[in-house]
Amino acid sequence: MLIPDWLARRAALHPHRPALIYAGTTYTFAELDRWAGAVASHLRQLVTPGARVALLSRNRPGFVAIVHAAPRTAITLVPLNTRLTAAELAFQIQDSDPALLIIEHDLLPVAREAAGNRPLIVLEELTAATTAPTAPAPPIDLDAMHTIIYTSGTTGRPKGAILTAGNHWWNAIGSMLNLGLHEDDRWLAVLPLFHVGGLSILLRGAIYGIPVILHERFDPALVRHDLDAQRITIVSLVAVMLQRLLAIDPSPFPPHLRCVLLGGGPAPQTLLEQCATRGIPVTQTYGMSEAASQAATLSPAESLIRLGSAGKPLLPVELSIVTPSGQPAAPGEVGEICLRGPNISPGYLGLPPRSPTDWFHTGDLGYLDQEGYLYVVDRRSDLIIAGGENIYPAEIEAILLSHPAIAEAGVVGLPDPEWGQRPVAAIVAQQPTTAEELIAYCRSRLAGYKVPRTIVFLHELPRTAAGKLRRHELRAILLAQMSGNDH
Amino acid sequence: MLIPDWLARRAALHPHRPALIYAGTTYTFAELDRWAGAVASHLRQLVTPGARVALLSRNRPGFVAIVHAAPRTAITLVPLNTRLTAAELAFQIQDSDPALLIIEHDLLPVAREAAGNRPLIVLEELTAATTAPTAPAPPIDLDAMHTIIYTSGTTGRPKGAILTAGNHWWNAIGSMLNLGLHEDDRWLAVLPLFHVGGLSILLRGAIYGIPVILHERFDPALVRHDLDAQRITIVSLVAVMLQRLLAIDPSPFPPHLRCVLLGGGPAPQTLLEQCATRGIPVTQTYGMSEAASQAATLSPAESLIRLGSAGKPLLPVELSIVTPSGQPAAPGEVGEICLRGPNISPGYLGLPPRSPTDWFHTGDLGYLDQEGYLYVVDRRSDLIIAGGENIYPAEIEAILLSHPAIAEAGVVGLPDPEWGQRPVAAIVAQQPTTAEELIAYCRSRLAGYKVPRTIVFLHELPRTAAGKLRRHELRAILLAQMSGNDH
Repeated sequence: MLIPDWLARRAALHPHRPALIYAGTTYTFAELDRWAGAVASHLRQLVTPGARVALLSRNRPGFVAIVHAAPRTAITLVPLNTRLTAAELAFQIQDSDPALLIIEHDLLPVAREAAGNRPLIVLEELTAATTAPTAPAPPIDLDAMHTIIYTSGTTGRPKGAILTAGNHWWNAIGSMLNLGLHEDDRWLAVLPLFHVGGLSILLRGAIYGIPVILHERFDPALVRHDLDAQRITIVSLVAVMLQRLLAIDPSPFPPHLRCVLLGGGPAPQTLLEQCATRGIPVTQTYGMSEAASQAATLSPAESLIRLGSAGKPLLPVELSIVTPSGQPAAPGEVGEICLRGPNISPGYLGLPPRSPTDWFHTGDLGYLDQEGYLYVVDRRSDLIIAGGENIYPAEIEAILLSHPAIAEAGVVGLPDPEWGQRPVAAIVAQQPTTAEELIAYCRSRLAGYKVPRTIVFLHELPRTAAGKLRRHELRAILLAQMSGNDH
Repeated sequence: MLIPDWLARRAALHPHRPALIYAGTTYTFAELDRWAGAVASHLRQLVTPGARVALLSRNRPGFVAIVHAAPRTAITLVPLNTRLTAAELAFQIQDSDPALLIIEHDLLPVAREAAGNRPLIVLEELTAATTAPTAPAPPIDLDAMHTIIYTSGTTGRPKGAILTAGNHWWNAIGSMLNLGLHEDDRWLAVLPLFHVGGLSILLRGAIYGIPVILHERFDPALVRHDLDAQRITIVSLVAVMLQRLLAIDPSPFPPHLRCVLLGGGPAPQTLLEQCATRGIPVTQTYGMSEAASQAATLSPAESLIRLGSAGKPLLPVELSIVTPSGQPAAPGEVGEICLRGPNISPGYLGLPPRSPTDWFHTGDLGYLDQEGYLYVVDRRSDLIIAGGENIYPAEIEAILLSHPAIAEAGVVGLPDPEWGQRPVAAIVAQQPTTAEELIAYCRSRLAGYKVPRTIVFLHELPRTAAGKLRRHELRAILLAQMSGNDH
């Protein structure tokens, strides 16, 4: 289905309204629209429609222009995580096979190492384009591939989740049907744009016709300042950010801030209670790349009275809890969270597509209470969430096992007061080695946030008869051992 | 495409929130959902899926339950205008060929006269159904026929405009992207539900999850009362209603009323100016049955500074002005208003369908100003052509309405042996005046060829239930009266 290009339409509806504010510079909807058009013209000279284009950049205005240029060029954007190592990037580049890489200037060294001989353009050069677009923006095909976002699989190999333009559109509509839309709305984006949590703010901004205030990174003092100075009404955060924000300033949040959309994994109860006491309108959400961000969200009115719940599914989304035997769970019964709806990814790059009538199995565990509120009990049994970043143990284990001194490796997430969780590795050595050596080995091969801070040497790992790692038991062993270390 | 039944989903999201308030009775979302389910169960015993079902009823809670029961039974609803004569109804019933007619008790006599031997059930009996639904509401197929609405027939024989569930959904979404959605929104419905202007409020209420306050008919004193008592934030009106509302009470409208959505044809400039002076947030809209209501709407922020404009097309809608030679019109140039988008009807019952990529030609005349704001000049069928000069009745009516003695005015073209047509005005006076005085008044304000040669004083003008002038009827009245005068 075709609908008018949302940014072009917003530029026609209210050309002079701010669309993007970054470091003191304001881009109106007309300016951002023209910019996206110029970038699209430039891109059309470099790649053919249908091509995939990888993008490696921190939060920059140019990132925004490229996101809106992409559908006008009929390319699929593959945003890459700037924290990854060259080896990690190389895998995603090889897997997504982009015809072009757009690289922020400062990230050229790692990109060159990862990209091999693939064509590459510097983001600053591409987005310096000023050629006026020759034709109006074509309509957006809601069925067309819009973005590919890599999420890690249980195997440790990341998979490219396909998001259509329609997935993003429906997520924006579903979010609006829950959070509402006010004329004075202004959304603060401090999450990385290469993750769906940040990217979806850009799309909502254009679809809703509201300003996005973009920060390069999360800086609590700047966020605190801009909540007031930029009259922010909605901000998307993960728990660790909210904690720091509360820590730096005990004064009340401004009254125009109507929604702190809190994602990136379960939030500590104490944090939610603290927010309730301080009257901060926290709206917990349960989302993921495959849902184009939110799947279930607590409505603002309930944010202070349903502490710990991720709310109910967005209006266009169906949610079902399925027991291990494949039956719908009873209220209160824990099972796998399954999703269906027009915002749910049709599948992964290179894997068979999911039919729209099939359920998407998240691998996450949760239950619905008597009134239908979702409580997420655990993300996929093995998933570690540290500061909003997903960490998949299998990926770290694979790196550890590639070291000659290591016979066996198991990684679990242990509680961390600041980050929520942190990865801890247990290994069985077959040659002499040290924790320092292994940590350094990981550091050269894994993004910093994935590197285990602690490595524990064991004689054996707890395993099932079939040889599968018993993660829950390993977690218990490590917890016991480390609390012992404290004394 | 399938999405969850919107009313069922809202009932799950917030069961205890009011969904419908009528004459002191409140129906929560859970109650309305259960009621729709029970009515659907009853309907399933009477008709088969795919059938058309006609509905003849004034604004009643049962009407609302039937509207939401219809997609659950996979029937297409044909709402009929309660002000029609038996002969007019008979035509629409024959044309739409319903398997069943649902008739409000008081309207049985006219319905029996119009329906012949077709099966018929009394609305009060059908909606007394209390059988608990046996299964959850099935998802709504956005491509399925939802409603057939007969267009007011200013151009001859009424045609049944087909509206899919998706047409209604996209109109609701497009309206929300323009007007926003506040948690405290409450929409007052005084327009007849058998017209798209009233019906669309019911659908928005369920999709947005907000209360609809339903009045049986437009009663200015009750509207004035409920604006305060029911904390109304949005009300849909036509010009004549707004005029009467202003006349009965000079006190300010309550501040929580954020939008008076003004449709049903161009509004007199004097009315808009009066509203601007009194700070009433009038939002003019240009809509029609074939657009599932709104096609273009002025955003609230512009309502007081773009007097007379119908705004810009809703985000999912494309609008083009086409000159008689088929070319896109230049800014300021009058042409035919053409529409395209997911809210536009796929066609008329019994006529070849329109492809989604084809433009829908409204037959209405308008222009876009330099900044893209739509000004509706007139309906093409109303165009008076005198001696080769085009005369737009709305222009003359606006002049007449600016005269203090005139309450209502309608202008039509009557045959003239010399000039082809000549404009004749019918007016309802609110102060003593004479035809000579009014003609002199016009002559000083209009080009000579536009000045009505004849002014006829009537007690009331013929209007549709939605308040729109029935030009063909007025023409017939004037023709009769003037031929009588000749003798």
